[in-house]
Amino acid sequence: MATIKDVAQLAGVSTATVSRVINRSAYVEPVTLERVEKAIKSLNYQRDARATALASRSNNTLGLLTGNLADPFFALIAKHVEEIARQHGCQLVVVSGGHNAQREKEGLDFLISQGCEAMVVHSKMLDDSMLLRYSAQLPAMVLLNRTIPQIANRSVWVDNRKGAAESVSYLIAQGHRRIACVTSDLPIEDRTDRLEGYRDAMQQANLVVEPNWIINQNFSEHGGELAGEQLLSQCPEVTAVVTFNDVMAAGLMASLHSHGLHVPNDISIVGFDDVLLARYLYPRLSTMHNPIDEMSSHAAKLALKLKATGLNPPSEHQFEATLVERQTVASPRKAILLEKL
Amino acid sequence: MATIKDVAQLAGVSTATVSRVINRSAYVEPVTLERVEKAIKSLNYQRDARATALASRSNNTLGLLTGNLADPFFALIAKHVEEIARQHGCQLVVVSGGHNAQREKEGLDFLISQGCEAMVVHSKMLDDSMLLRYSAQLPAMVLLNRTIPQIANRSVWVDNRKGAAESVSYLIAQGHRRIACVTSDLPIEDRTDRLEGYRDAMQQANLVVEPNWIINQNFSEHGGELAGEQLLSQCPEVTAVVTFNDVMAAGLMASLHSHGLHVPNDISIVGFDDVLLARYLYPRLSTMHNPIDEMSSHAAKLALKLKATGLNPPSEHQFEATLVERQTVASPRKAILLEKL
Repeated sequence: MATIKDVAQLAGVSTATVSRVINRSAYVEPVTLERVEKAIKSLNYQRDARATALASRSNNTLGLLTGNLADPFFALIAKHVEEIARQHGCQLVVVSGGHNAQREKEGLDFLISQGCEAMVVHSKMLDDSMLLRYSAQLPAMVLLNRTIPQIANRSVWVDNRKGAAESVSYLIAQGHRRIACVTSDLPIEDRTDRLEGYRDAMQQANLVVEPNWIINQNFSEHGGELAGEQLLSQCPEVTAVVTFNDVMAAGLMASLHSHGLHVPNDISIVGFDDVLLARYLYPRLSTMHNPIDEMSSHAAKLALKLKATGLNPPSEHQFEATLVERQTVASPRKAILLEKL
Repeated sequence: MATIKDVAQLAGVSTATVSRVINRSAYVEPVTLERVEKAIKSLNYQRDARATALASRSNNTLGLLTGNLADPFFALIAKHVEEIARQHGCQLVVVSGGHNAQREKEGLDFLISQGCEAMVVHSKMLDDSMLLRYSAQLPAMVLLNRTIPQIANRSVWVDNRKGAAESVSYLIAQGHRRIACVTSDLPIEDRTDRLEGYRDAMQQANLVVEPNWIINQNFSEHGGELAGEQLLSQCPEVTAVVTFNDVMAAGLMASLHSHGLHVPNDISIVGFDDVLLARYLYPRLSTMHNPIDEMSSHAAKLALKLKATGLNPPSEHQFEATLVERQTVASPRKAILLEKL
């Protein structure tokens, strides 16, 4: 059976050009068009069914590439992207990248093969150049929770560094000096940015960060529990902790409780994200509200608008995390006791 | 433009037969086949791209119709169905029905339009006859968390009634007599079955259920909080509560905490589902483990097997919920005090 390469060779053009002709996805010179169509006919080239679906630029779907379907943060993204899809009479198709570059790529390719044009992409493992290549092919693809300078006007993101710094400054303002940072063990941008924010705030208050105050674990409930064990053995002197996200805070709190420690009297905690869970922990978790709900809706609307209009004026889609004070922060009793010794 | 109805009329057959010819989905008599193909040609009938995708019975997707993308119970389903899809080299496509009959139907139609054959369907709002109609068209469709007698061999479900009864019997064995049931306000089968189980266990112990002990709320964290307020005003005499699910228990506990009540010393609680959250509540939630993880994997494997082999021997796919004892149940202090009066 003839392939797209055979067609390209016979017509003397690139496969990209053949693809453009097949999918009517971009302008092709009439002469070239004719040559390609002739080659298709003479080779009896048959596109497969998915390619045909792709060719029909009329489908009514919104694609979402997400991280991990079981994580409440990603569940929140899916929920809000879906709401916008429904408001626009679109069907949402969700695929998950599982925090793995190969699977993120497969997920994107699948959405394309299903004829999705508008898509919201949460990718942390593919590099900028790869995502730029996809974005060039897909004018209605919007990045969520990440920014790449060349496509900043299609990037919807939160200032993680500033948000993390704010959570630390808040603890410092309550009198804390020995503050640990329980963070992710994955080399993702969010980790780097939030860790930088932690360092910024400590430095601004002239506080030295001891290397053992930074604890790296999987960003899950279980990772948070392990971080709790590590914290108690490795830096019992800390009076407060900022965590990479709320589910880590949940695990950390469970671990501290099981050691008979009281939150916030013994240790204060500030999370990040403000997923629904945060309000139902005991005590209720103080955290940085990550406006991922608004960001998800914004990204979905932007993707659908780009699909409908093709226009994309230069603009910024940066959001800010804001502090939500609940019940897990108090003045440092332990610190005061230690200083009295 | 000619429609499938025009083709059917001209060929003197039903649209179902036309569809069978187009999709090569079932045997059609050669004479009929010829008549239909002739009608298609003479009317210049064009299937749309999605119909073409459907016709290509070779795609490698597993469809999932789920309830609510933001709920941890459904997140768990998605996660486990996805794992099986990946193990089989399939791409998972998720659509959500949002606990709404119309949206469940749209979701199913969308999966079909995308050429999904193997699918796992979590539907609570479509009636049996509608689902039977879909299942007749889709030999590799498997129902999850529901059973319909005619397709019991394609239904994967848990014995909710027995599970709920067990949670109540456990509380009775700890000495509780006044036990409330915080349940869903949606008329879904799970609610009916679990409520029956509650009544079964109470009756078996010769305990009368007061009507005000049954509290109906939305099955969310917020619904659980509202149930807590209602419980304290409407039946302060109860010493224990079984809840429809864990997220309702989370809300209930938050509400009780905010009224200064101690769990389990003042009120014992048993949840249902055993989602990850249950282990991170404080105290850790005792609950009925709903093997939704195993059920999801089982349903996904069954769907893929049905797609691959076409065989479906009669068999039962019933699972059992099991009690997980954690920290939210104690003997009824309050009950004892009341009896001493």
